[in-house]
Amino acid sequence: MKHLKIKFNLENSFDNQESNKIERYLGDLRHIFLDKLKVDYILKKDDPLIYEVYQVEVPPEPGQIMFGISIVYPGKVGNEYFMTKGHYHKNPNAAEVYLCLKGMGYLIMESSSGKVNSIYMQPGSFGYVPPQWAHRTVNISEEPFVCFYSVPADAGHDYEELEKTGFKITVKEIEGIIKVVPLEYISEKS
Amino acid sequence: MKHLKIKFNLENSFDNQESNKIERYLGDLRHIFLDKLKVDYILKKDDPLIYEVYQVEVPPEPGQIMFGISIVYPGKVGNEYFMTKGHYHKNPNAAEVYLCLKGMGYLIMESSSGKVNSIYMQPGSFGYVPPQWAHRTVNISEEPFVCFYSVPADAGHDYEELEKTGFKITVKEIEGIIKVVPLEYISEKS
Repeated sequence: MKHLKIKFNLENSFDNQESNKIERYLGDLRHIFLDKLKVDYILKKDDPLIYEVYQVEVPPEPGQIMFGISIVYPGKVGNEYFMTKGHYHKNPNAAEVYLCLKGMGYLIMESSSGKVNSIYMQPGSFGYVPPQWAHRTVNISEEPFVCFYSVPADAGHDYEELEKTGFKITVKEIEGIIKVVPLEYISEKS
Repeated sequence: MKHLKIKFNLENSFDNQESNKIERYLGDLRHIFLDKLKVDYILKKDDPLIYEVYQVEVPPEPGQIMFGISIVYPGKVGNEYFMTKGHYHKNPNAAEVYLCLKGMGYLIMESSSGKVNSIYMQPGSFGYVPPQWAHRTVNISEEPFVCFYSVPADAGHDYEELEKTGFKITVKEIEGIIKVVPLEYISEKS
C-alpha cells in the first residue's frame, strides 16, 4: 500500500483503474423495497441500475482508511425513492463519514437498539455515522446523488443483520411531499 | 458523540457552528519557508492568512473518524508557494485521505526514513497518505486550494519532528514553471 493518486471526474464520470466498482441492480435489491409487486412489475420490463460504488481498497488494518464514491441513481419504486442496501459495520467501533458532492438525498440511520435518525444532504453536507448505527443513502433528487465516504479499513460490512429486520424508516413521496416516514405509518395509510 | 449534521458551503464559505476553526498566518509559519528575509519583508507590511482548517471534532477513539476542510490561500513567499505546516501522526498506524474540492495544488509527503513523494491535486483528485508519512498541502493555483480530509480520530498530530528537520522537497516557481524540487537543488541554484 503506497500513496494512491486517484482522479475521479466529479462532473460526469467516476470510472478509474484503481477502484473496485460495485453495481447493484433492482433485481439484487428486491428485498429492500416495500412494494414487491411494483418491483416485480418493473423487473418484467427492465432491471435498472440503482446504485454504484467506486471503492478504493486499502489494507484492512487499524489506522488505514477505506474510501470511495457512491452514486445512487434517481428513481422510485412506486413512491419509495431509490436507495442503497445499507449496512452495519462488523467492527462495532467503526464510524463512517459522508460528504455529499452532487444531488440531494438522505442519510438514513438506525441503531441496533431500534433508534432511528436521518440527515438531509445536499452538496457540501457532511453526515457522520457513529459506531453501531446501520446506514444507507437515499436519492430524492432528479440527478445522481453522489457522496464521498470514508471508513476505517477494518470496519467490515454486515448486510445480513438488516436483511432480517429491514430499516424502520424509509423515504417516500406522499401526497407530493418527500417524507422520511416510519414503516408503521405507511402500513396504516396503505 | 451523535450524528453530526453539518453543511459547508462549498462555493464560498466554510464557516459553521460545529467545527473548530484553526487559522495560520505567515507570522506563525516563518520556519516553514526557505527565504526568511522575504518572510520578514512581507511581515513588515502585513501578516497574511496562509491557511485555515475547519475541523469537526469527534471522540478520539479507535474507529471514529475526524474530518474537515483545509483551505490554503493563493500566494507565494518569493517563489515558494503558500502551504500548510505539515505533520506526522502520533499514532504510527494512522493514514489520512484527501479529496480536492477546489483549486489546484500538491500533497507533499515524506517518510521518517527520508523518502519523498508528491501528488498533484485538482477537483476530484484523491490523495492517500499511508501510515508513517509526514504530509502537507501546497496551493499552486490563483484561487483557494480546498481539500476535504479524513483521518482516524486517534491519529494525533506531531508537528515537532518536522520543525527539527523540515521537508526535503518544496514547490516553487522556477523560470516560470511550477516545480516540486528537492532543497539541495534550490541551494545549488541560488
